[in-house]
Amino acid sequence: MRFTSEQRLDDGVLEREFTLGEIPGTLWTPESAAPAPLILMAHNNGLPKAASRLVARARATAACGYAVAAVDAVGCGDRPRSAAEEQDRAEFRQAMQAGDPVDEIFESFIGPLVEKAVPDWRTALDALLTLPEIGGPVGYSGWMALGIRLAVVEPRIAAAGFFAGGFVPAAQREEVRRITVPLLMLLQWDDEGNPRQRALDLFDAFASKEKTLHANPGGHTGTPWFELEDGNRFFDRHLK
Amino acid sequence: MRFTSEQRLDDGVLEREFTLGEIPGTLWTPESAAPAPLILMAHNNGLPKAASRLVARARATAACGYAVAAVDAVGCGDRPRSAAEEQDRAEFRQAMQAGDPVDEIFESFIGPLVEKAVPDWRTALDALLTLPEIGGPVGYSGWMALGIRLAVVEPRIAAAGFFAGGFVPAAQREEVRRITVPLLMLLQWDDEGNPRQRALDLFDAFASKEKTLHANPGGHTGTPWFELEDGNRFFDRHLK
Repeated sequence: MRFTSEQRLDDGVLEREFTLGEIPGTLWTPESAAPAPLILMAHNNGLPKAASRLVARARATAACGYAVAAVDAVGCGDRPRSAAEEQDRAEFRQAMQAGDPVDEIFESFIGPLVEKAVPDWRTALDALLTLPEIGGPVGYSGWMALGIRLAVVEPRIAAAGFFAGGFVPAAQREEVRRITVPLLMLLQWDDEGNPRQRALDLFDAFASKEKTLHANPGGHTGTPWFELEDGNRFFDRHLK
Repeated sequence: MRFTSEQRLDDGVLEREFTLGEIPGTLWTPESAAPAPLILMAHNNGLPKAASRLVARARATAACGYAVAAVDAVGCGDRPRSAAEEQDRAEFRQAMQAGDPVDEIFESFIGPLVEKAVPDWRTALDALLTLPEIGGPVGYSGWMALGIRLAVVEPRIAAAGFFAGGFVPAAQREEVRRITVPLLMLLQWDDEGNPRQRALDLFDAFASKEKTLHANPGGHTGTPWFELEDGNRFFDRHLK
C-alpha cells in the first residue's frame, strides 16, 4: 500500500490517495490520534470514488471520528473497462433515460461488476486494517449490491448503511436473506431509478434483527442532509 | 388551569398534574429556566395519558429541553364513556384479537372520538401557551388520527411525529393531503394492528415537503429506543 498524495482539510481530516497494486484508493482519517473504526464507502454501480457526492460524504463521516476508505475496484470508477463493458454502460444509460425496461441489461453488466469488485475491496480491507491509525470494527456504506455481497462473504463487516436498492442483481436479491448485521437502508421515495416497491421488498427480506428504513421524498440525489448525521449515529451505535 | 400535584424527577424534569375545566392533563417541563418549546403528546386511539409507555416518552422528551403535555380529551383515557362507547371499544378489541375485519367498527368509534377530542386539545394548547415556562413553537407527537386533524385545524402546530398509521379514520385519510408541516412517521414493520401497506400509502399522501418515514422490524410495542432520540432530533430541527 503506497500513499501517493495527502492533504489536510479544514476540519483536521487527512485525505490521502493510495495505490494497492492496481487498485487506486482514497483514505480519509480523523484528526484524533486514537485508532478509528473503518467505514468502507462505495459509490452506486461502480461510479468513481472521486465523485463529489461520495467525497463530501466521506469527509463529513471522517470528521465524525471514522477512517473512511473508497477504492475504484476492477471495472469501477477510473479503472480501465473493456469496449463491451463501456457499451453495456452506455446502453443502460440510454434505456434509463428513454424509460425503457432496464432489468436485463442491468443484470448483464452489474452482476459481473459486483462479482469482480468484491476481491479488490477485500484486498483493500486487509491492507487498511494493518495501518496503526485504523482499528476495527468495520462498517460499510453506499452501493447496496456490493454491500450485500461483501456482508455475506466478509465477517469483518459489522454494520451496513445501504442506499436505494431498487436495482440489485438477482444474485444479491437472493443473498439478502443471509444478511444478519445491523443495517440502515436509505430510500428516496420518488427515485425513478430505484423502483420503490422493489426497495421495500428488499428491506423486508434482510434477516437482520436490527434493520431500519429511512425514506424521504424526492429523487435520487435529493437525500436530505440530516440523513448523513443519522447514518453516522447508526455507525456510532455499532462501531464505537 | 389548576395544578393539582407535582413531583421533581431525578433528571430535573418537573412533572405536574393539572385540570382545565373537565380536562385532566399532565405537564412535564425541563429544568432549564428559559421558555421551552411545547410538544403535545397523545397516546394512540385515546388511551390514557397515564399509560407507562407514554409517560416514559414524555419524561425523556422533557429531559431533552421540551415542555411536554398530555391530556385525556373527552372520551379518552380516564374520562367517562357512554355504555355505547364502552361497547364499541370492547367489540373492537375482540375483533382485533380474533383477527376479524375491524374497519367498520374502528370507523364507527374512532372517527367520532377524534372529532370530539380535538377541541379539548386546542383548549389545553391555549392554556399551556399562557404559561411563562412555555414558549412556541409547538410540536405534536403520537396518535396519528388526532395529529392529522390537529395539524389541519391548528396553525400553531409546526412539526409532527406520527406513530404507526395503519388504522386512520376515513376523514383523516382524506385530510393528510392538506398536511404541509414537516413530519416524521414511525412504522413498526410487523405491527399486525397497523397494516403496513396502508401506513405506506398514508406516508405517500402527505403534502409535506419534508416528511421522513422510519421503519423498524417488530410489533406494535417494539419500537427501538434510538427512535426516541431520532424523534427528539427531528423536533430539534424544527422547534428549537
